[in-house]
Amino acid sequence: MSTLYSYFRSSAAYRVRIALNLKGLDYDTAPIHLVRDGGEQLKPAYRALNVNGLVPTFIDGEVNIHQSLAIIEYLEEVHPTPALLPADPVARAQVRALALDIAADIHPIDNLRVLRYLKHDLGVSEAQKNAWYVHWIVEGFTALEARLAVQSSQGRFVFGDTPTLADCCLVPQVYNANRFKVDMTPFPRIAAIDAHCQTLDAFRRAAPEAQPDAE
Amino acid sequence: MSTLYSYFRSSAAYRVRIALNLKGLDYDTAPIHLVRDGGEQLKPAYRALNVNGLVPTFIDGEVNIHQSLAIIEYLEEVHPTPALLPADPVARAQVRALALDIAADIHPIDNLRVLRYLKHDLGVSEAQKNAWYVHWIVEGFTALEARLAVQSSQGRFVFGDTPTLADCCLVPQVYNANRFKVDMTPFPRIAAIDAHCQTLDAFRRAAPEAQPDAE
Repeated sequence: MSTLYSYFRSSAAYRVRIALNLKGLDYDTAPIHLVRDGGEQLKPAYRALNVNGLVPTFIDGEVNIHQSLAIIEYLEEVHPTPALLPADPVARAQVRALALDIAADIHPIDNLRVLRYLKHDLGVSEAQKNAWYVHWIVEGFTALEARLAVQSSQGRFVFGDTPTLADCCLVPQVYNANRFKVDMTPFPRIAAIDAHCQTLDAFRRAAPEAQPDAE
Repeated sequence: MSTLYSYFRSSAAYRVRIALNLKGLDYDTAPIHLVRDGGEQLKPAYRALNVNGLVPTFIDGEVNIHQSLAIIEYLEEVHPTPALLPADPVARAQVRALALDIAADIHPIDNLRVLRYLKHDLGVSEAQKNAWYVHWIVEGFTALEARLAVQSSQGRFVFGDTPTLADCCLVPQVYNANRFKVDMTPFPRIAAIDAHCQTLDAFRRAAPEAQPDAE
């Protein structure tokens, strides 16, 4: 059985949990507490598995993969069914781009280590830090909502009528938005997709509150 | 012929230029000036092509793809030779993860819009802004250099002896590091890979100074 080094609230780990569940793959969770004692992800024991000091890390026997999107692409290649990417190259590119709109253009800027730098190195206030967090979600969701409004593949998910890599990224980002009380009124399509995903067991079992390390 | 909406100094556009050149694909460059007049990428004419207001955008007939990694994966699928990803799924995952170490975990935090927010919304000094920029490169390169030291596939490139998606990401990031005078002494493997890439025509023709909009 494979092991996912995870933190219940990590967006990136949450994406991989959704993908594993959608593909029906069992796995063990190895919790890495990102806050306690300065962060277990920064300790030598975890750095030996993932020198970046970030979660998730996916271990399957000799296989060690970091970076959530690389893990999900790997799962897609070795366990192709059910597919999390469409078959057509242009459609695959669109799904990957929508996933990256979140995983590259929202999440990294709001990541814990960045918030820590803002606070400890730049001395920004709690209010400024929260405004920063919300700003990058609103920027990203505004573009994403506009894309959802015009794309040819409208359906119950980000792209069409089956869950894809893009939904694996969207749902954890909406979780973060809700946690930071982002007003979702301007983003009805995003909210509707999230609500639909939440009806599915694969997404529910991946949720932070369903994790063994949930607080 | 396809068109790449590009800015000479954009890391993300630079990645795609390298990939197009490595695959021997001709393309037209449509320059989008990211600074002049508040940024052409934010004007309605460009937003109509890419609502995110970021470069690059790749247009080929009816095909419109944004996000540099999604564009390169698309090129890989429709023009598989020469390959920018290895054949083995684990090796592919490793290359994608190394690419994301740069494209998700360094570059977005140092992107122009983030630097603008630091300056205009948080009022940080020029020195603090530069320290921020360098900090995220040093963080990322430290982990990457450690990975390069231990990986089984050591060669002249990031992964093995042929250029991959990871080199398409590394070389533009080293360009940024040099521009901000990052001390590369602690990163001899990264510097050597960059130096080797610079000997190749595909990388040289993709460089900022070789672009039609270079200043």
